[in-house]
Amino acid sequence: MTIHDWPIGPYPARVRIAVAEKGLQSRIRFETVNLRKGEHRKAEFLARNYSGTLPVLELEDGTCIAECTAITEYLDALDGTPTLTGRTPREKGLIHMMSRRAELELLDAVSVYFHHATPGLGPDVELYQNAEWGLRQRDRALRGMHHFDSVLRRGPFVAGSAFSMADITLIGGLIFAGLVKLPLPEGCEALRDWYAGMQERPSVRDRLALS
Amino acid sequence: MTIHDWPIGPYPARVRIAVAEKGLQSRIRFETVNLRKGEHRKAEFLARNYSGTLPVLELEDGTCIAECTAITEYLDALDGTPTLTGRTPREKGLIHMMSRRAELELLDAVSVYFHHATPGLGPDVELYQNAEWGLRQRDRALRGMHHFDSVLRRGPFVAGSAFSMADITLIGGLIFAGLVKLPLPEGCEALRDWYAGMQERPSVRDRLALS
Repeated sequence: MTIHDWPIGPYPARVRIAVAEKGLQSRIRFETVNLRKGEHRKAEFLARNYSGTLPVLELEDGTCIAECTAITEYLDALDGTPTLTGRTPREKGLIHMMSRRAELELLDAVSVYFHHATPGLGPDVELYQNAEWGLRQRDRALRGMHHFDSVLRRGPFVAGSAFSMADITLIGGLIFAGLVKLPLPEGCEALRDWYAGMQERPSVRDRLALS
Repeated sequence: MTIHDWPIGPYPARVRIAVAEKGLQSRIRFETVNLRKGEHRKAEFLARNYSGTLPVLELEDGTCIAECTAITEYLDALDGTPTLTGRTPREKGLIHMMSRRAELELLDAVSVYFHHATPGLGPDVELYQNAEWGLRQRDRALRGMHHFDSVLRRGPFVAGSAFSMADITLIGGLIFAGLVKLPLPEGCEALRDWYAGMQERPSVRDRLALS
Protein backbone atom coordinates (compact mmCIF):
# COMPACT_ATOMS: atom_id res chain seq x y z
CA MET A 1 0.00 0.00 0.00
CA THR A 2 1.11 3.58 -0.63
CA ILE A 3 0.32 6.62 1.47
CA HIS A 4 0.56 9.93 -0.33
CA ASP A 5 1.29 12.59 2.24
CA TRP A 6 3.48 15.43 3.45
CA PRO A 7 5.62 14.02 6.22
CA ILE A 8 5.29 16.84 8.76
CA GLY A 9 1.61 17.60 8.05
CA PRO A 10 -0.81 17.41 11.00
CA TYR A 11 -3.45 15.41 9.08
CA PRO A 12 -0.83 12.97 7.75
CA ALA A 13 0.32 12.61 11.38
CA ARG A 14 -3.05 11.09 12.26
CA VAL A 15 -2.58 8.28 9.77
CA ARG A 16 1.15 7.81 10.50
CA ILE A 17 0.30 7.35 14.18
CA ALA A 18 -2.46 4.87 13.29
CA VAL A 19 -0.04 2.93 11.04
CA ALA A 20 2.46 2.67 13.92
CA GLU A 21 -0.21 1.74 16.49
CA LYS A 22 -1.31 -1.12 14.20
CA GLY A 23 2.26 -2.22 13.46
CA LEU A 24 1.77 -1.80 9.72
CA GLN A 25 4.94 0.17 8.90
CA SER A 26 6.49 -2.61 6.82
CA ARG A 27 3.43 -2.85 4.55
CA ILE A 28 3.38 0.80 3.57
CA ARG A 29 5.53 3.04 1.42
CA PHE A 30 5.23 6.81 1.63
CA GLU A 31 5.16 9.16 -1.36
CA THR A 32 5.59 12.87 -0.72
CA VAL A 33 3.10 15.39 -2.13
CA ASN A 34 4.73 18.81 -1.87
CA LEU A 35 2.13 21.12 -0.34
CA ARG A 36 4.33 24.21 -0.64
CA LYS A 37 4.52 23.66 -4.38
CA GLY A 38 0.74 23.17 -4.49
CA GLU A 39 1.04 19.60 -5.80
CA HIS A 40 -2.20 18.75 -3.95
CA ARG A 41 -4.06 21.13 -6.27
CA LYS A 42 -2.81 19.50 -9.49
CA ALA A 43 -4.81 17.14 -11.67
CA GLU A 44 -2.66 14.10 -10.89
CA PHE A 45 -3.40 14.37 -7.19
CA LEU A 46 -7.03 15.46 -7.61
CA ALA A 47 -7.65 12.25 -9.53
CA ARG A 48 -6.73 10.41 -6.32
CA ASN A 49 -8.75 12.70 -4.05
CA TYR A 50 -11.35 15.13 -5.40
CA SER A 51 -11.09 17.26 -2.24
CA GLY A 52 -7.35 17.82 -2.70
CA THR A 53 -6.48 16.96 0.90
CA LEU A 54 -3.74 14.77 2.35
CA PRO A 55 -3.22 11.97 3.19
CA VAL A 56 -4.51 9.43 0.67
CA LEU A 57 -4.07 5.67 1.02
CA GLU A 58 -3.70 3.90 -2.33
CA LEU A 59 -4.37 0.16 -2.31
CA GLU A 60 -2.55 -2.31 -4.57
CA ASP A 61 -5.42 -2.29 -7.09
CA GLY A 62 -5.28 1.51 -7.37
CA THR A 63 -8.30 2.20 -5.17
CA CYS A 64 -7.74 5.43 -3.24
CA ILE A 65 -9.08 6.08 0.24
CA ALA A 66 -8.95 9.69 1.44
CA GLU A 67 -10.00 11.27 4.76
CA CYS A 68 -8.14 10.36 7.95
CA THR A 69 -11.16 8.77 9.63
CA ALA A 70 -11.81 6.55 6.61
CA ILE A 71 -8.16 5.50 6.34
CA THR A 72 -8.05 4.75 10.07
CA GLU A 73 -11.22 2.63 9.78
CA TYR A 74 -9.57 0.68 6.95
CA LEU A 75 -6.23 0.13 8.71
CA ASP A 76 -7.88 -0.71 12.03
CA ALA A 77 -10.10 -3.37 10.47
CA LEU A 78 -7.33 -5.13 8.50
CA ASP A 79 -6.35 -7.57 11.26
CA GLY A 80 -9.91 -8.20 12.43
CA THR A 81 -9.14 -6.74 15.85
CA PRO A 82 -10.07 -3.06 16.01
CA THR A 83 -8.14 -1.19 18.70
CA LEU A 84 -8.56 2.40 17.51
CA THR A 85 -12.17 2.71 16.29
CA GLY A 86 -14.10 0.76 18.93
CA ARG A 87 -15.47 -2.75 19.29
CA THR A 88 -18.90 -2.26 20.91
CA PRO A 89 -21.64 0.03 19.58
CA ARG A 90 -21.04 2.37 22.51
CA GLU A 91 -17.28 2.54 21.92
CA LYS A 92 -17.77 3.15 18.20
CA GLY A 93 -20.29 5.92 18.85
CA LEU A 94 -18.22 7.71 21.46
CA ILE A 95 -14.93 7.42 19.57
CA HIS A 96 -16.44 8.74 16.34
CA MET A 97 -18.17 11.58 18.20
CA MET A 98 -15.06 12.71 20.02
CA SER A 99 -12.81 12.34 16.97
CA ARG A 100 -15.20 14.48 14.93
CA ARG A 101 -15.37 17.00 17.76
CA ALA A 102 -11.57 17.18 17.86
CA GLU A 103 -11.70 18.01 14.13
CA LEU A 104 -14.49 20.58 14.34
CA GLU A 105 -13.39 22.31 17.51
CA LEU A 106 -9.62 22.15 17.13
CA LEU A 107 -7.84 20.56 14.18
CA ASP A 108 -10.04 21.86 11.35
CA ALA A 109 -10.39 25.22 13.12
CA VAL A 110 -6.60 25.61 13.36
CA SER A 111 -6.28 24.60 9.71
CA VAL A 112 -8.73 27.29 8.59
CA TYR A 113 -6.89 29.84 10.74
CA PHE A 114 -3.57 28.83 9.14
CA HIS A 115 -4.83 28.95 5.56
CA HIS A 116 -6.94 32.10 5.93
CA ALA A 117 -5.49 34.38 8.61
CA THR A 118 -1.75 33.70 8.26
CA PRO A 119 0.46 33.49 5.12
CA GLY A 120 -0.35 29.76 5.14
CA LEU A 121 1.42 27.89 2.34
CA GLY A 122 2.39 31.15 0.64
CA PRO A 123 0.80 33.39 -2.00
CA ASP A 124 1.25 30.92 -4.86
CA VAL A 125 -0.90 28.33 -3.06
CA GLU A 126 -3.30 30.41 -0.92
CA LEU A 127 -5.23 31.95 -3.81
CA TYR A 128 -8.23 32.93 -1.67
CA GLN A 129 -8.15 33.96 1.96
CA ASN A 130 -10.89 35.16 4.31
CA ALA A 131 -9.01 36.52 7.31
CA GLU A 132 -12.11 37.33 9.36
CA TRP A 133 -13.29 33.73 9.09
CA GLY A 134 -9.81 32.50 9.89
CA LEU A 135 -9.64 34.55 13.09
CA ARG A 136 -13.08 33.28 14.18
CA GLN A 137 -11.78 29.75 13.78
CA ARG A 138 -8.66 30.55 15.81
CA ASP A 139 -10.94 31.67 18.65
CA ARG A 140 -12.98 28.49 18.24
CA ALA A 141 -9.80 26.42 18.54
CA LEU A 142 -8.79 28.19 21.75
CA ARG A 143 -12.26 27.49 23.22
CA GLY A 144 -11.88 23.92 22.00
CA MET A 145 -8.68 23.51 23.99
CA HIS A 146 -10.56 24.47 27.15
CA HIS A 147 -13.29 21.97 26.28
CA PHE A 148 -10.84 19.12 25.81
CA ASP A 149 -9.09 20.15 29.00
CA SER A 150 -12.39 19.63 30.81
CA VAL A 151 -12.84 16.26 29.08
CA LEU A 152 -9.37 15.14 30.18
CA ARG A 153 -9.99 16.17 33.79
CA ARG A 154 -12.59 13.39 33.89
CA GLY A 155 -10.46 10.56 32.49
CA PRO A 156 -7.12 9.66 30.92
CA PHE A 157 -8.35 9.38 27.31
CA VAL A 158 -10.52 11.48 25.00
CA ALA A 159 -13.18 8.77 24.54
CA GLY A 160 -13.78 5.93 26.98
CA SER A 161 -11.16 3.99 28.90
CA ALA A 162 -8.50 3.36 26.24
CA PHE A 163 -6.36 5.11 23.64
CA SER A 164 -8.31 5.53 20.39
CA MET A 165 -8.70 7.42 17.13
CA ALA A 166 -10.17 10.29 19.18
CA ASP A 167 -6.86 10.75 21.00
CA ILE A 168 -5.02 10.66 17.68
CA THR A 169 -7.24 13.39 16.21
CA LEU A 170 -6.67 15.62 19.23
CA ILE A 171 -2.90 15.01 18.92
CA GLY A 172 -3.19 16.16 15.29
CA GLY A 173 -4.91 19.32 16.48
CA LEU A 174 -2.16 20.08 18.99
CA ILE A 175 0.55 19.37 16.42
CA PHE A 176 -1.08 21.92 14.09
CA ALA A 177 -1.52 24.41 16.95
CA GLY A 178 2.19 24.07 17.67
CA LEU A 179 3.13 24.67 14.02
CA VAL A 180 1.09 27.91 13.90
CA LYS A 181 2.30 29.03 17.36
CA LEU A 182 -1.08 28.86 19.09
CA PRO A 183 -0.07 28.00 22.65
CA LEU A 184 -2.32 26.16 25.08
CA PRO A 185 -4.20 28.76 27.13
CA GLU A 186 -3.65 29.20 30.86
CA GLY A 187 -5.66 26.73 32.89
CA CYS A 188 -5.36 23.80 30.49
CA GLU A 189 -3.15 21.70 32.76
CA ALA A 190 -5.06 18.46 32.16
CA LEU A 191 -4.72 18.86 28.40
CA ARG A 192 -1.03 19.71 28.78
CA ASP A 193 -0.36 16.69 31.00
CA TRP A 194 -2.29 14.37 28.68
CA TYR A 195 -0.29 15.62 25.67
CA ALA A 196 2.99 15.09 27.53
CA GLY A 197 1.88 11.53 28.29
CA MET A 198 0.88 10.90 24.68
CA GLN A 199 4.36 11.90 23.53
CA GLU A 200 5.75 8.92 25.41
CA ARG A 201 3.85 6.52 23.16
CA PRO A 202 6.29 5.25 20.48
CA SER A 203 3.76 5.94 17.68
CA VAL A 204 3.51 9.60 18.68
CA ARG A 205 7.16 10.08 19.64
CA ASP A 206 8.35 8.75 16.27
CA ARG A 207 5.98 11.07 14.40
CA LEU A 208 7.01 14.11 16.42
CA ALA A 209 10.67 13.33 15.74
CA LEU A 210 9.93 14.29 12.10
CA SER A 211 9.09 17.92 12.86
CA MET B 1 -33.28 5.81 23.63
CA THR B 2 -34.10 9.44 22.89
CA ILE B 3 -33.12 11.43 19.84
CA HIS B 4 -33.07 15.19 20.33
CA ASP B 5 -33.64 16.77 16.94
CA TRP B 6 -35.62 19.14 14.75
CA PRO B 7 -37.91 16.97 12.64
CA ILE B 8 -37.39 18.65 9.26
CA GLY B 9 -33.65 19.31 9.69
CA PRO B 10 -31.28 17.86 7.05
CA TYR B 11 -28.78 16.51 9.60
CA PRO B 12 -31.57 14.94 11.70
CA ALA B 13 -32.79 13.37 8.44
CA ARG B 14 -29.56 11.36 8.22
CA VAL B 15 -30.21 9.72 11.56
CA ARG B 16 -33.97 9.31 11.00
CA ILE B 17 -33.22 7.47 7.75
CA ALA B 18 -30.65 5.27 9.53
CA VAL B 19 -33.17 4.49 12.29
CA ALA B 20 -35.72 3.40 9.69
CA GLU B 21 -33.17 1.38 7.67
CA LYS B 22 -32.26 -0.51 10.85
CA GLY B 23 -35.91 -1.00 11.90
CA LEU B 24 -35.32 0.73 15.24
CA GLN B 25 -38.32 3.09 15.24
CA SER B 26 -40.06 1.38 18.17
CA ARG B 27 -37.00 1.75 20.42
CA ILE B 28 -36.63 5.51 19.98
CA ARG B 29 -38.56 8.53 21.13
CA PHE B 30 -37.99 11.93 19.56
CA GLU B 31 -37.70 15.19 21.48
CA THR B 32 -37.86 18.44 19.53
CA VAL B 33 -35.16 21.10 19.96
CA ASN B 34 -36.54 24.31 18.45
CA LEU B 35 -33.80 25.69 16.21
CA ARG B 36 -35.74 28.82 15.30
CA LYS B 37 -35.93 29.72 19.00
CA GLY B 38 -32.19 29.01 19.35
CA GLU B 39 -32.75 26.20 21.86
CA HIS B 40 -29.62 24.48 20.52
CA ARG B 41 -27.53 27.41 21.83
CA LYS B 42 -28.88 27.16 25.41
CA ALA B 43 -27.01 25.61 28.32
CA GLU B 44 -29.42 22.68 28.67
CA PHE B 45 -28.68 21.51 25.15
CA LEU B 46 -24.98 22.39 25.17
CA ALA B 47 -24.59 20.07 28.17
CA ARG B 48 -25.70 17.26 25.81
CA ASN B 49 -23.52 18.40 22.90
CA TYR B 50 -20.73 20.95 23.29
CA SER B 51 -20.89 21.78 19.57
CA GLY B 52 -24.56 22.76 19.75
CA THR B 53 -25.54 20.73 16.71
CA LEU B 54 -28.44 18.37 16.10
CA PRO B 55 -29.21 15.50 16.34
CA VAL B 56 -28.08 13.97 19.63
CA LEU B 57 -28.81 10.38 20.68
CA GLU B 58 -29.27 10.00 24.43
CA LEU B 59 -28.89 6.47 25.80
CA GLU B 60 -30.87 5.14 28.77
CA ASP B 61 -27.98 5.85 31.16
CA GLY B 62 -27.81 9.49 30.05
CA THR B 63 -24.76 9.09 27.77
CA CYS B 64 -25.10 11.44 24.79
CA ILE B 65 -23.76 10.67 21.33
CA ALA B 66 -23.62 13.59 18.90
CA GLU B 67 -22.50 13.76 15.24
CA CYS B 68 -24.47 11.89 12.58
CA THR B 69 -21.62 9.57 11.64
CA ALA B 70 -21.11 8.56 15.26
CA ILE B 71 -24.81 7.97 15.85
CA THR B 72 -25.03 5.93 12.65
CA GLU B 73 -22.03 3.81 13.74
CA TYR B 74 -23.78 3.16 17.06
CA LEU B 75 -27.16 2.27 15.57
CA ASP B 76 -25.65 0.15 12.81
CA ALA B 77 -23.62 -1.93 15.27
CA LEU B 78 -26.48 -2.62 17.70
CA ASP B 79 -27.69 -5.81 16.02
CA GLY B 80 -24.20 -7.11 15.22
CA THR B 81 -24.93 -6.94 11.48
CA PRO B 82 -23.71 -3.66 10.01
CA THR B 83 -25.54 -2.75 6.80
CA LEU B 84 -24.82 0.98 6.60
CA THR B 85 -21.18 1.44 7.67
CA GLY B 86 -19.44 -1.48 5.95
CA ARG B 87 -18.34 -4.98 6.92
CA THR B 88 -14.92 -5.38 5.28
CA PRO B 89 -11.97 -2.98 5.72
CA ARG B 90 -12.45 -1.82 2.15
CA GLU B 91 -16.17 -1.17 2.57
CA LYS B 92 -15.59 0.71 5.82
CA GLY B 93 -12.88 2.85 4.24
CA LEU B 94 -14.83 3.72 1.11
CA ILE B 95 -18.11 4.39 2.93
CA HIS B 96 -16.45 6.68 5.48
CA MET B 97 -14.53 8.50 2.74
CA MET B 98 -17.58 9.14 0.59
CA SER B 99 -19.80 10.07 3.51
CA ARG B 100 -17.24 12.61 4.69
CA ARG B 101 -16.90 13.90 1.14
CA ALA B 102 -20.68 14.33 0.92
CA GLU B 103 -20.44 16.43 4.08
CA LEU B 104 -17.46 18.53 2.99
CA GLU B 105 -18.47 19.07 -0.60
CA LEU B 106 -22.24 19.34 -0.26
CA LEU B 107 -24.11 19.09 3.05
CA ASP B 108 -21.76 21.16 5.24
CA ALA B 109 -21.16 23.60 2.38
CA VAL B 110 -24.92 24.17 1.94
CA SER B 111 -25.27 24.59 5.70
CA VAL B 112 -22.60 27.31 5.80
CA TYR B 113 -24.28 29.02 2.84
CA PHE B 114 -27.64 28.93 4.65
CA HIS B 115 -26.32 30.26 7.96
CA HIS B 116 -23.97 32.88 6.50
CA ALA B 117 -25.28 34.12 3.15
CA THR B 118 -29.07 33.91 3.65
CA PRO B 119 -31.23 35.03 6.63
CA GLY B 120 -30.71 31.51 7.99
CA LEU B 121 -32.59 30.93 11.24
CA GLY B 122 -33.27 34.66 11.64
CA PRO B 123 -31.47 37.57 13.28
CA ASP B 124 -32.07 36.38 16.84
CA VAL B 125 -30.16 33.14 16.15
CA GLU B 126 -27.62 34.09 13.44
CA LEU B 127 -25.55 36.44 15.60
CA TYR B 128 -22.51 36.33 13.28
CA GLN B 129 -22.56 35.96 9.51
CA ASN B 130 -19.77 35.98 6.93
CA ALA B 131 -21.59 36.32 3.62
CA GLU B 132 -18.47 36.07 1.46
CA TRP B 133 -17.55 32.74 3.04
CA GLY B 134 -21.15 31.57 2.70
CA LEU B 135 -21.20 32.32 -1.02
CA ARG B 136 -17.90 30.48 -1.53
CA GLN B 137 -19.45 27.45 0.12
CA ARG B 138 -22.53 27.70 -2.11
CA ASP B 139 -20.22 27.52 -5.13
CA ARG B 140 -18.41 24.57 -3.56
CA ALA B 141 -21.74 22.79 -3.12
CA LEU B 142 -22.65 23.32 -6.77
CA ARG B 143 -19.29 21.87 -7.83
CA GLY B 144 -19.92 19.03 -5.39
CA MET B 145 -23.16 18.17 -7.16
CA HIS B 146 -21.25 17.76 -10.42
CA HIS B 147 -18.72 15.54 -8.65
CA PHE B 148 -21.38 13.26 -7.20
CA ASP B 149 -23.09 13.18 -10.58
CA SER B 150 -19.86 11.77 -12.03
CA VAL B 151 -19.65 9.24 -9.18
CA LEU B 152 -23.21 8.09 -9.85
CA ARG B 153 -22.56 7.68 -13.57
CA ARG B 154 -20.20 4.85 -12.61
CA GLY B 155 -22.53 2.92 -10.30
CA PRO B 156 -25.91 2.93 -8.55
CA PHE B 157 -24.64 3.89 -5.08
CA VAL B 158 -22.28 6.51 -3.67
CA ALA B 159 -19.84 3.95 -2.22
CA GLY B 160 -19.48 0.39 -3.43
CA SER B 161 -22.27 -1.91 -4.54
CA ALA B 162 -24.93 -1.33 -1.88
CA PHE B 163 -26.89 1.41 -0.14
CA SER B 164 -24.87 2.85 2.77
CA MET B 165 -24.28 5.76 5.11
CA ALA B 166 -22.63 7.56 2.19
CA ASP B 167 -25.92 7.58 0.26
CA ILE B 168 -27.71 8.84 3.37
CA THR B 169 -25.27 11.75 3.77
CA LEU B 170 -25.71 12.75 0.13
CA ILE B 171 -29.50 12.60 0.58
CA GLY B 172 -29.07 14.96 3.56
CA GLY B 173 -27.15 17.33 1.31
CA LEU B 174 -29.86 17.33 -1.34
CA ILE B 175 -32.59 17.82 1.28
CA PHE B 176 -30.72 20.90 2.53
CA ALA B 177 -30.13 22.14 -1.03
CA GLY B 178 -33.88 21.85 -1.63
CA LEU B 179 -34.71 23.81 1.52
CA VAL B 180 -32.44 26.69 0.49
CA LYS B 181 -33.58 26.56 -3.15
CA LEU B 182 -30.26 25.50 -4.65
CA PRO B 183 -31.40 23.49 -7.66
CA LEU B 184 -29.33 20.72 -9.22
CA PRO B 185 -27.27 22.24 -12.06
CA GLU B 186 -27.83 21.33 -15.68
CA GLY B 187 -26.08 18.12 -16.66
CA CYS B 188 -26.55 16.32 -13.35
CA GLU B 189 -28.95 13.71 -14.72
CA ALA B 190 -27.28 10.78 -12.96
CA LEU B 191 -27.53 12.55 -9.61
CA ARG B 192 -31.15 13.49 -10.33
CA ASP B 193 -32.09 9.92 -11.29
CA TRP B 194 -30.31 8.47 -8.25
CA TYR B 195 -32.17 10.89 -5.94
CA ALA B 196 -35.51 9.97 -7.52
CA GLY B 197 -34.69 6.31 -6.93
CA MET B 198 -33.68 6.95 -3.33
CA GLN B 199 -37.05 8.58 -2.67
CA GLU B 200 -38.69 5.24 -3.35
CA ARG B 201 -36.95 3.67 -0.35
CA PRO B 202 -39.45 3.67 2.58
CA SER B 203 -36.84 5.14 4.96
CA VAL B 204 -36.31 8.15 2.70
CA ARG B 205 -39.94 8.52 1.59
CA ASP B 206 -41.17 8.62 5.19
CA ARG B 207 -38.62 11.26 6.13
CA LEU B 208 -39.44 13.43 3.12
CA ALA B 209 -43.14 13.23 3.99
CA LEU B 210 -42.28 15.37 7.05
CA SER B 211 -41.20 18.39 5.01
